[in-house]
This record gives sequence, C-alpha cells and structure tokens, in this order.
Amino acid sequence: MEIHQERMVKAQELLAKLDFDFMALFPSSNMLYLSGFYDEPGERMLLLLVPREAEPIFLVPELYEEQIKQKSPFQDIRIWKDRDDPTDLLRQIVVDLAVRGGKVLVDDEMWAKFFLMLREALPKAKFSLVSRVMVPLRMQKTAHEIHCLEQAGAIVDETFEEIIRSKIAGMTELTLATALEEAMKKRGAEKVAFVLVASGPNSALPHYRGGQRRIEPGDVVILDYGCRIQGYCSDITRTIVCKEASKEIQAVYEIVERAQEKAVQAIRPGVKAEEIDQAARQEITKAGYGERFIHRTGHGIGLDVHEEPYIVEANHLELRQGMTFSVEPGIYLPGQFGIRIEDIVLVTQRGAQRMNRCTHTLQIVK
Amino acid sequence: MEIHQERMVKAQELLAKLDFDFMALFPSSNMLYLSGFYDEPGERMLLLLVPREAEPIFLVPELYEEQIKQKSPFQDIRIWKDRDDPTDLLRQIVVDLAVRGGKVLVDDEMWAKFFLMLREALPKAKFSLVSRVMVPLRMQKTAHEIHCLEQAGAIVDETFEEIIRSKIAGMTELTLATALEEAMKKRGAEKVAFVLVASGPNSALPHYRGGQRRIEPGDVVILDYGCRIQGYCSDITRTIVCKEASKEIQAVYEIVERAQEKAVQAIRPGVKAEEIDQAARQEITKAGYGERFIHRTGHGIGLDVHEEPYIVEANHLELRQGMTFSVEPGIYLPGQFGIRIEDIVLVTQRGAQRMNRCTHTLQIVK
Repeated sequence: MEIHQERMVKAQELLAKLDFDFMALFPSSNMLYLSGFYDEPGERMLLLLVPREAEPIFLVPELYEEQIKQKSPFQDIRIWKDRDDPTDLLRQIVVDLAVRGGKVLVDDEMWAKFFLMLREALPKAKFSLVSRVMVPLRMQKTAHEIHCLEQAGAIVDETFEEIIRSKIAGMTELTLATALEEAMKKRGAEKVAFVLVASGPNSALPHYRGGQRRIEPGDVVILDYGCRIQGYCSDITRTIVCKEASKEIQAVYEIVERAQEKAVQAIRPGVKAEEIDQAARQEITKAGYGERFIHRTGHGIGLDVHEEPYIVEANHLELRQGMTFSVEPGIYLPGQFGIRIEDIVLVTQRGAQRMNRCTHTLQIVK
Repeated sequence: MEIHQERMVKAQELLAKLDFDFMALFPSSNMLYLSGFYDEPGERMLLLLVPREAEPIFLVPELYEEQIKQKSPFQDIRIWKDRDDPTDLLRQIVVDLAVRGGKVLVDDEMWAKFFLMLREALPKAKFSLVSRVMVPLRMQKTAHEIHCLEQAGAIVDETFEEIIRSKIAGMTELTLATALEEAMKKRGAEKVAFVLVASGPNSALPHYRGGQRRIEPGDVVILDYGCRIQGYCSDITRTIVCKEASKEIQAVYEIVERAQEKAVQAIRPGVKAEEIDQAARQEITKAGYGERFIHRTGHGIGLDVHEEPYIVEANHLELRQGMTFSVEPGIYLPGQFGIRIEDIVLVTQRGAQRMNRCTHTLQIVK
C-alpha cells in the first residue's frame, strides 16, 4: 500500500509542475503502478482520476468495488451500476477537477470509446498523454523492481535449459508453446506474459505467434517468451535448430550473435539509446544483411513487456543507471528462416548487467 | 480470404449509407473480422484504413509486412520503419481519404495515443465510433460462426466434466486455473480466452482472477473460463463446492439456478434484451438478494468475449435469430461467498438453444 502512496505523491508533483489539472488513467500498467489495482481493459468504464492536489478518485462499475477496496490505498470509489450510463457521473467529477479550464492527461492506452466520452464531458479541454508524467517515474527501476525483473529472468533462463533437453521434432508450434508455459509456471511464474514459437519459414516473421505447423529436422525455431513476477516481466529470445543446422543458418546466426554482443558492450550511462541500436545495426549491415534487420534493437521492460526507453535510431535519450531494456537484433529471410537473440539488460555504473544468462551458442535440439 | 472480402463490401456499403468518409481500425476483433489479420495492440502504429469506396489500406510497421501478405486479402500495405515517425505517412493517407471534410469512424478500442495522432492529422474532422458499422454486421451470427461457437462451447463443457472428477482440496486457485487451461488445450482449444478461479471469500468478487489462496473443505469455488476456435469464444461459469455445502450455500445456489433458468426460458425473437435481465433479476429480488446481484445478466459473445448485445436494464434492443449471448446471474455476499451460473445461448425461432449443456446441479467435489 505505502509504495503506491509514495508513487502517487511523485506523480501529483510532476502533474503540478507540468501544469495539468488532472490525469485520467485507464486499466493499464500506469493504473497498476500508481494504485495497486489492475484488470484487463473492458467495455465498462473504469477510470482512476488523479487531480494535481486532492485525493485520487476511482470511477468504477459496481462489480469492482470490493476488489478495489482490497487492492488499493485510494478509497474514494465512485461506483456506477451496469443499468446506468456513467456519462453524467463522469461529467460531474471531471468538471470539478478541471479547475484551470481543463488541461488533461489521458492514459496512452485509453480506448477511443472512453476518450470521446471524456472529450464530450469537457469540450474545451486540451488533452495530452499521461506518458509525460509516467515515463519519467517508471523508466529507472528501484532495487525492488530490479529484484522482480531478475526473478522473472531466472525463470525464463531455466525454462530454456529444460526445453533444449527435450525432443522437439514432430511437435507443433502450439504444443511447444504450451510446454514453455508449463515450464515457466512450474518454476513459480505468477503469469505467462506471452509466448511466440515460430518454426521453419515462420521464423522469418518477427511477430508470428505460433500455429499448427509441425517442427521438422533442419528447421530453425525461434522461442520468444516471458513471464511475470509481481507484475514485472521477463522477455527472452533464443533461436535453436532441430537436429541439424545448414551452413547458411550457422553463418547468419553468428552475425546476429556478434551484433547482440557488440550492442551489449556499448551500454553504459550517458550513451544514447540510438548508439546501442547503431552498434548492432553496423555489424549486421557490414555482413550484408542490413535490409533484413527489420526492427529496432530493443525496448524497455518493467510492468509492460514493451515500454520506454526504446533502443532505436533517432532516440537521443541518454541511458541512465537503473534502466532495463532488451537487446534483440535479428535477421529475417522471407520464405526461408529468421534468427533473433534477445537478453534483458540493466544499466549499471560499470555497463550492462545481463538479466538473462543462458547460453548464446547455437543449440541443436533433437 | 473470400469471406473477408464479402464482409468488407458490406462494411463499406454501411459506411457510405451512414455518410462517413472512412473508418480507422486498430488491432481488435473488428480488424480480424474484416481483414483476417490480428495481433495484440502495441506501441507501434498499426491501422487498417477503410474508405467508403476504394481499396482498404494497411498502415503497418515493417516487421508485420510479410504476415499481413499471408493473412489478408487486402494488399495495399504501406509500411513504416521503426526508425521513422509514422505521423507524416498517416497524414498523407488520411487527408486523401477525408474527401468530405473528414467524417471519420475510429475503432472503439483505439488507444488514445493513436487517436490523438489521427486528430492532429485531421484537425477539422468529426469523429465517431466504428461500432456504428461493426455491431450491426457482427451481432447476428452466420452458420459458420455458430459452428465455431458450438465447438468452443463443447470444449468448456467437457473440461468441466473432467475437473469435477479431480481432487481440488489443497490446490491453489492458480493451480486449478492451470488445470483448466490444460484440459481445454488437450481438447483442441486453439487459445485459452481467459480463466477465473475464485475460492472462498474471493468468490464474492465477480472479476477476481485467481491467486495463491488454497482451496479448503467447505469453500465455494467459482470457475469462469473460455477458449477460442477460429477466433470465436466460449465462456462458461459453474460454481462448485469443496467437499461440503452449507445450507446457506445450497439455498443461494438454488435461487441463482432458478433465476438463470427463468431468464433462458424468456428468450425468443422479438423480446427485448432488458426483459431477459428482468426475468433473472425478479427471481433474485423476490428471494431478497436483489442488492447482491451487482452486474447485468449477460453479454453477447463472438470474436470478443464481451460484445453486443448486452443483456441489461434499459437495453430496448429486440433479440433476433442468430444472436449469441451469456445468461449469468449471480449473488455476491462480501467476505463470505458468491454464486454464479452461466451458459451461452443462441437465439432461434423457437427460443434459446444452449451452447453449454453440462449440469446445473450443485457439484460437491473432493
């Protein structure tokens, strides 16, 4: 409880400093971070309205009342019933909060459905995004947050060590995904964050999630998965091969491995995010695959699997101690195969500290 | 592929009839329904822009290009790279589409982050929600959709029959949730849609998702779970007890069971959605628990677990053949226990046809 009150004080200070009237949070990691309460976004209006000075107000469907009483230190809970339209209640609350004519921050992930209702309630307000307040608060992790991220990282590492000792030939991608989920849960994962298993030509699709394709000898298989500990995520990618690796696969693998290593070595406080991207990209470009590295090098991680800082060209942000992000270059050859290697790292005074420590050597699995 | 082209034609006809310039779909069931492509919403802009006459346009990050080529019949794919800001590309496209000065429908679930970009690109446009076009298209299911919903329903029924034969005393809620997931996957579920396991006093929280609490003799346990077949969802709730049921639990259970039955019996084409809610609510109110039935009676189901029609007071919508929705009254006694019984039903000429057929009799489980 206390931790949420401390975070709320900081958020309200920043809100005042930036001269906004209030912020409207939607079910998201922002709501969880500040209040301790979260549920998946849904069709019922559920908002946390945070004024710059007074007590935050939950505006929630009746069926959440008891849950919020148990989960959050903020107990000004205004409920609406399923049979009612919450528009009037919303209007009453926000008109009171918009003391300076309505300078409002809305959750970056708020559904348009609710944003339009808010805009109707405050037709003259100026809207901007809560990330202006939340990103500075959330980007550098505390010791407790780092501890959770490390625990979540250890689980995915051990899961990888287990999976490469099993037999994958003949499994479907979805069956292998289920095996990864079970292995994470067995080791204490509170939740599976996500699992991607992409085999053969599917591995050339960076966000392919897995289907009924059966894994065959000679296939490249990308495993990209993560779990949660106290809400904090892990995210690892390893590329393995089934039974035998062609020379081309081995060659491309080595390029990606080198690029990942170069990027990790470039990390230290004061270096810009884009420089880490460049370090990986130069290595891949030099090897002739620049056009096939079709995404940024990484993303921050915390309560969200993807959050700031993004490790991407043109991001001039300077890295600081306590930032945590992925380093995950890849090469994708459409119709053939793809290779990606990803670790989460923590920025320390002395450089990157890896939160994933399982091997980078190409694993040939039965 | 063909099915998506047919649906797109209908959507564009309705768009023209309602006199909008274009609609902007975000990763959601709407995008899946019309295009065949879906991925979870994320921080990268990914839109499907549908003009009232011309070919739809995907505006997507480079890493999705190959996936969309494979999944969707719509091949006007404009890509942006992670290193670029997609704002200019968005502006160019939407300015061209806003031929009538900008009457635009946005996905109900579009994140505020992207809605604000769209609003900046079209500062004079008038925005409304795509549900105006999509709900009429999606609310009455076709034979193929009903077939998928039935398959998904059969899986959760069989899963329930398996679980009540197992030993639940001493299990944690999360372990039981995992058992439900595995049982659904074993029977061919392509995806788990969601799983809620709420035991003892947690069962009084309608949206509690499950935690480390251990199930004890005498506990009420609410199981609320569903899976997907070709994207279409199932959703069932059964309330069981561990080893022994107190008289109070039995009495409240019978009230909920009667209320659920009354509501299902009231269903036929031409009856209003609110009348189904009333049928259940009257029964519970008569028994003295009206204040403890703290949610609506049901929700539509299809590609979304929750969609129109909502079975709620003040919804005057007349039921029609082919609609599918849940009937799930409940009684919640804070600090003690809750009871809910839920089946999915299909509206047919002759009344409701249940898509869940496993027993309503209170199950005492080891």
